[in-house]
Amino acid sequence: MTKKYRVGILGATGVVGQRFIQLLQNHPQFEVTALAASDRSQGKTYSEACTWRLPGDMPEQVKQIVVQPPAPPLDCNFVFSSLPTDVAKDAEENFARAGYPVISNSSPHRMGADIPLLIPEVNPEHIALIDFQQKTRGYERGYIVTNPNCSAIAIVMALAPLHAKFGITSCVVTTMQALSGAGYPGVASLDATDNVIPFIGGEEEKIEAETLKLLGRINGSTIDAPAMTVSAQCNRVNVTDGHMASIRVSLSNKGSVDEIRAALSSFTADPQQLKLHSAPAKPIIVRNENDRPQPRLDRDSGNGMSVTVGRIMPDNVLDYRFVALGHNTIRGAAGAAILNAELLIAMNKL
Amino acid sequence: MTKKYRVGILGATGVVGQRFIQLLQNHPQFEVTALAASDRSQGKTYSEACTWRLPGDMPEQVKQIVVQPPAPPLDCNFVFSSLPTDVAKDAEENFARAGYPVISNSSPHRMGADIPLLIPEVNPEHIALIDFQQKTRGYERGYIVTNPNCSAIAIVMALAPLHAKFGITSCVVTTMQALSGAGYPGVASLDATDNVIPFIGGEEEKIEAETLKLLGRINGSTIDAPAMTVSAQCNRVNVTDGHMASIRVSLSNKGSVDEIRAALSSFTADPQQLKLHSAPAKPIIVRNENDRPQPRLDRDSGNGMSVTVGRIMPDNVLDYRFVALGHNTIRGAAGAAILNAELLIAMNKL
Amino acid sequence: MTKKYRVGILGATGVVGQRFIQLLQNHPQFEVTALAASDRSQGKTYSEACTWRLPGDMPEQVKQIVVQPPAPPLDCNFVFSSLPTDVAKDAEENFARAGYPVISNSSPHRMGADIPLLIPEVNPEHIALIDFQQKTRGYERGYIVTNPNCSAIAIVMALAPLHAKFGITSCVVTTMQALSGAGYPGVASLDATDNVIPFIGGEEEKIEAETLKLLGRINGSTIDAPAMTVSAQCNRVNVTDGHMASIRVSLSNKGSVDEIRAALSSFTADPQQLKLHSAPAKPIIVRNENDRPQPRLDRDSGNGMSVTVGRIMPDNVLDYRFVALGHNTIRGAAGAAILNAELLIAMNKL
Amino acid sequence: MTKKYRVGILGATGVVGQRFIQLLQNHPQFEVTALAASDRSQGKTYSEACTWRLPGDMPEQVKQIVVQPPAPPLDCNFVFSSLPTDVAKDAEENFARAGYPVISNSSPHRMGADIPLLIPEVNPEHIALIDFQQKTRGYERGYIVTNPNCSAIAIVMALAPLHAKFGITSCVVTTMQALSGAGYPGVASLDATDNVIPFIGGEEEKIEAETLKLLGRINGSTIDAPAMTVSAQCNRVNVTDGHMASIRVSLSNKGSVDEIRAALSSFTADPQQLKLHSAPAKPIIVRNENDRPQPRLDRDSGNGMSVTVGRIMPDNVLDYRFVALGHNTIRGAAGAAILNAELLIAMNKL
Repeated sequence: MTKKYRVGILGATGVVGQRFIQLLQNHPQFEVTALAASDRSQGKTYSEACTWRLPGDMPEQVKQIVVQPPAPPLDCNFVFSSLPTDVAKDAEENFARAGYPVISNSSPHRMGADIPLLIPEVNPEHIALIDFQQKTRGYERGYIVTNPNCSAIAIVMALAPLHAKFGITSCVVTTMQALSGAGYPGVASLDATDNVIPFIGGEEEKIEAETLKLLGRINGSTIDAPAMTVSAQCNRVNVTDGHMASIRVSLSNKGSVDEIRAALSSFTADPQQLKLHSAPAKPIIVRNENDRPQPRLDRDSGNGMSVTVGRIMPDNVLDYRFVALGHNTIRGAAGAAILNAELLIAMNKL
Repeated sequence: MTKKYRVGILGATGVVGQRFIQLLQNHPQFEVTALAASDRSQGKTYSEACTWRLPGDMPEQVKQIVVQPPAPPLDCNFVFSSLPTDVAKDAEENFARAGYPVISNSSPHRMGADIPLLIPEVNPEHIALIDFQQKTRGYERGYIVTNPNCSAIAIVMALAPLHAKFGITSCVVTTMQALSGAGYPGVASLDATDNVIPFIGGEEEKIEAETLKLLGRINGSTIDAPAMTVSAQCNRVNVTDGHMASIRVSLSNKGSVDEIRAALSSFTADPQQLKLHSAPAKPIIVRNENDRPQPRLDRDSGNGMSVTVGRIMPDNVLDYRFVALGHNTIRGAAGAAILNAELLIAMNKL
Repeated sequence: MTKKYRVGILGATGVVGQRFIQLLQNHPQFEVTALAASDRSQGKTYSEACTWRLPGDMPEQVKQIVVQPPAPPLDCNFVFSSLPTDVAKDAEENFARAGYPVISNSSPHRMGADIPLLIPEVNPEHIALIDFQQKTRGYERGYIVTNPNCSAIAIVMALAPLHAKFGITSCVVTTMQALSGAGYPGVASLDATDNVIPFIGGEEEKIEAETLKLLGRINGSTIDAPAMTVSAQCNRVNVTDGHMASIRVSLSNKGSVDEIRAALSSFTADPQQLKLHSAPAKPIIVRNENDRPQPRLDRDSGNGMSVTVGRIMPDNVLDYRFVALGHNTIRGAAGAAILNAELLIAMNKL
Repeated sequence: MTKKYRVGILGATGVVGQRFIQLLQNHPQFEVTALAASDRSQGKTYSEACTWRLPGDMPEQVKQIVVQPPAPPLDCNFVFSSLPTDVAKDAEENFARAGYPVISNSSPHRMGADIPLLIPEVNPEHIALIDFQQKTRGYERGYIVTNPNCSAIAIVMALAPLHAKFGITSCVVTTMQALSGAGYPGVASLDATDNVIPFIGGEEEKIEAETLKLLGRINGSTIDAPAMTVSAQCNRVNVTDGHMASIRVSLSNKGSVDEIRAALSSFTADPQQLKLHSAPAKPIIVRNENDRPQPRLDRDSGNGMSVTVGRIMPDNVLDYRFVALGHNTIRGAAGAAILNAELLIAMNKL
C-alpha cells in the first residue's frame, strides 16, 4: 500500500470541519495529521476543544491532536479549509504561499479569476487555472482550489448535463435549505421551528455568480461565462441536512421530457471513470415517484455524494422544471473538497 | 341591531369547517344555525361528532347542534361549504338548486365558466356571473360562489395591484405550504418532520389556472384571461399555518422597485372602502426587513386576513422578485369565504 | 381614571423583556416609560436596539424610548426585571437601594431568605417578607420581589391546592420544556430539530428548591419548608412555547381521583377574588380528554395565565399522577411578574 | 457456508415490516422468502404493494415477492411478525399451530403465561417456556416468542443490570417517544409539530406490566414477578426515531453513583458472549456529558441496537435517576425480534 497523504484541516471544530474528520476516517489516501481553528480552541487537544455534534463519537485518531492556529507551518502535505469567511482569505493565501495546496470549502476565493471553482463531474478542466495562479501569485508548490457554495453544487450538478446537451439560456432557482448550512449554533431554534426564513445572507448572489463560473469554458487563463441568466431565491427551512431546489430552465435546443430525463440519469463524468474513492456510482439519481426527492429519504444517497432529481416536467414560463436535492455538508461541503483532492491526485496536481 | 343571517356550514367537522365556526363566533352579521358533514358524524351533536383541533375550546353555541347530512333542506339562509372534493360538486349544486346561496371554499366548481371565483379585493365585478349562472342553470334564489385555492389567494392578492399598474406578462411561483393546508389528519408526521415534500396533488395546476381566472376581465358572461403565463412549483414544509411563496414577475411596463413597493403597500379595494367586517385595514403589508415575511411572525397579521410581502428586488431572469405569505386557513380558506359573503351582502346579493 | 404607574423594564431587549412590553400594552394600571438593557443596545432607541421576535409588530409606544443602562435612576415608579443572571443580582439590589420596587423574573434573588418568591394564587402571605427585607437591608421604599422559575410556576400552581387539601409528602416531576425558555438565540436549531435534550442548566435544582419555598409557611420572618421531597428531571423538547410536566405525588391524606380533580378544578385564590387585571378566571383548567393538555392547543388558555391539568389517575409508585402545562413566557415569566405587581398594588405595597 | 433460514415476514408493508426487510438484507443467517400483510396489498408484488418509507431504496431481493395473506402455509422456515394488534393474535396462533416458529414484535401474546417475552441480554432463560407452551397448546414444531414494547425494551435493558446487582424496589419512568413508534401514517403532523402529546394508547400499561415479566424469575413453567412497583407516564414528542426515558429507581442495596455507572457500562450478556450477529458490542453505552443521550446523536449507536444511558445521579424521592435512549424501530422492534431469532438458533430452538 502506498503512503497516505498527511492532511491538515483548517476550521476543524466547526460543522464542516467535523464532517471532514468523519469522512476522512478510514479514507484510503488521506490521514489527518493536523487540526487548526481560528477560535479559542488553540492549544487544546481536539477532544478538549471540540464538542462533537455529529451522530456517533469523535474518531479516536483525532482526539489527541493539539489544535493549532490556522497559519503555516502545519504538519501535513496539504490542507482542507472550512475557515470562517472573515479569516479564510488571508489564512488560505498564507498557506498557499508557504507551499501548501489549499483545498477550500470557504467562499472568499471562489470567484477569484485565477482560482479553480471545481466540481469534478462538471468542470475538471478548470484545474488548468492552477498553473496560471501559481505564476501570477508567485506561489511555488502551493495553490488554492475551491468548491462551490453548498446549494450551487447540487444545482449545477443537475444543470451541467442539460447545459452540455441542450444549452441552458435561463435558470430560475428557489431553494429550501437545511439548518446545518448555517453552521453551529447557526439558526436559532425559535426561528426554525414552525417557520420558514426567506433570507440567507449572500446566498442568492453566490448561487447566481458561481453557477456562471462553473458552467463557463476555460479559454487560456480565463473562464468564459455562458450566455445564461440565473435567478436564485433562497429560503431556510426546518430540515437538519439536505438542500432542496425547485428549478426551471429554458433551453436553446428544446429536448423532450424523456431526453431531459435521459441526459440526467445517464450522466457520468471523470470521477466515475477514474473511480475516485468518494465518487458516487451515479452522480445524479433520477426518481420517478411524484413526491421525491425528499431530504429525509434521499439526502444520504450515494453516501451523500449523489444529487437526486425528480418531478421533471414542462413549465409554462420557462421550458422545463424539476426538483434537485443534495446533502449540503457532504456533497455540498466536506465531501466536495475531498473529491476535489482525489481528482487533483489523479491529475498529478497533489 | 339587524337580525343576523342564519348560516349553515357544510364540512363542519374538518379543519376548515372548524375555522368557519371559530371565525363566525361573535360575527355581527352571521350566526351558525346548521352544521353538516359527509362523514360518520351525522346524527350526533357537534360536540360528540367533532374533535376540536384549534387552540382553545369549541364555542358553546355549536356544541348542541346536531350534525346533518350535506343535503338540503338545512335550517339556514345560506351555506358555507368546505366539503371534501369528491362530495362537494353534487352537494353544492343540490343546495343552489334548492334555493341556498353556496359560498364555497371547495375546489370542484372554481373553474366553472359561470361560477365567480372571488377575492373581494381583486375581482369583485366577477359577482356579475351570478345572474348568468342562475339563468343558465335554472337556479332561482340559489347560486354558487367560490374562493380560490389557499395558495392562489395570497399569490394573486400580491399580483393584483402589480397587474393593474404594470401588466404582468409572466409569473413564476414556488410555494412552501403549511401542513394545515392538507386538512386533518393530512400529512403524516413522519413525512413532515425534518423534511420537505416537493408535491401537493393538484396544487400546481390549481394555482396556474385560478390565477388567470382571478386576474381575468369580465366580458358579458365570460372572463377573458389576461395575456400571462404562470408557472407554479409547490412544496410542503414543516409549518403548521401560513403558506409562503417565492414569486418572480415580468411586467409590460417596468416600474422601479420603489414603484412596485408603493403599488403593493398602498393597495386598498372595495372591502376596505365598504368596511367589511373581516376586511383587514391593509390587505397587503409590505415589510422592509430582509428576512420577512416569516410564517410564525406574520401569518396572523390583520387577524390572518392580510398578505405580507417582503424582499422586493430586481430579478435576473424575470423583472422582479419578492416573497408573499398568507394564512392558509384564514385568508386562504374560511376567512376568504366569509369575506365573500360580506361582500355579497354589501352588493345586495345575499 | 386614576393615573397609571410609570414602569421601567430591565432586560427589555430579551425574549421576556419583549413579552413584558407586549403584555403591558393597553394595561389599565401600567405604562412603560423606561427601558434598560445590559447589552450593547444602550443609547439607541428601542426600535433601533431591538429585533422584535414576537408575532406582530413592536408596539408604537416603546419605539422611541432610548434604552438605558440597567442602573438607577430611571424615569419610572418601579421596575420589572428580566436581566440575565450574571447582571441581575447587583443591578436589582442597586435599584431597591435607590428606592425602586423591583418585581423580578430573574433567578439570583429568588432563594434569598428575606425575598418573597411569589405566586399570587399560592403564597400571597409571603409578601410580609418585604418589611423584614427593608429593615434588614436598610432599603427605604425599594424592595425586591421575585417570581419563580418558568417550570416551577406551573408545577406549583397545580400542587398548591393538593398540598392544601391532602398534604403532599413527595413529588416527582419530569418536564418537557419549550425552546423560548432558553431565550434568544438560545437553543441551536440543530439541537432542537428531531431531538430531545435531557439537560437544562440549573433547572432541576431550581424546581426542587423553589417548590419547597413556595409551599412553605411564613413564620415571622422566615419560611418553614414543608415536609416534602421533590425530584425534577428536565428535558428540552422541540416546542416554541409551553412547558409540560409529568407529575406524580404522594399524599398524607389520600383522596380519591374525583377529590383530586375537584380540588384542582375548583381552585381560586386572591387574584380571582381581587379581580386582578391579569388573573385568569380559572387559574387551573382541568381537561378530561385523555390526550390533553398539549402545548399547541392549551398554552394560551386564560390568555396564557391558566395552568392546564389532565390525565389525573392513580399511580403505582406514588399515589397519583397527572400532567400540567403552563405558558412559560406568560404565566411562567412576564405575566407572572405583572400579576405580582397587580397583587402588590392591591396589598398597598406599590 | 451453511444454508440460510428461509424467513417470512408478517405485516411486511408497515413501518416495522420495512425495518425487518432492511435489517435482514445481507444477514448471514436469514433470507427473506415470503411476505404477508393484512391489508389490501395481497396478490401484488411487494414493490407494487408497498411505498418504501425508509431512507434509501427498497432492497432488490424483495421487490418481486408476491404479498400473501397472513395465514399458513408460507414458503419459509419461520416467521417474523409485526402484524397489527387486531390481526396478530389469531394469525400468530395459526402459524404456530401449523408448525412455524413465530418471532413476534406484536403485542397480543406478550403477556401470555406460556409465552416468552424475551430480551436476549435480560432473560434468555425464559426461552424454557417454549416447551411448556408447545405441550399446553399442542403445538408440534411451532411456537410463539415475543419481544417487548418498544419503550419497555430500552427501559428494561437499563434496569436489568441494576436489578441484578442492587435489587430494584420501585421504578418511575417518564417517556418521550418518537413518531415512528405509531407506525405510518400514525401521528398527524398537525399534532406533532410544535407540540407534545401526553398520551399513547395502552403504552403506560404495557411498560408497567412487561417490565415485571421481563425481570421475573422463571420457576418451572411460571415467571415469578419481582417485588417491584413500576409507574410509567408516556408522551409523544416531535422526534422521528428514538425513545427517551427519564427514569428513577429505588434499590434494596443502595450502591454509589459510581457503582451504578459501573454496573451499567460493564454490562454484557449471552448475545455478546455468543457473538450473535445483531448483538452490539456494548448493550449499554454510558455517556458522561451532561446533555446526553439525545435521539439525533445516539439512536444509531451500536447500529441501533445499543441503549445509551446518561445523567446518572442521586434522586431526592427515589434513590437514583438517569436517562435512557433506544432506537424504537431497531432495538425496540425489528432488531429485537431478529436478535431473538439469533438467540433461538444458538439455543437450538430454531
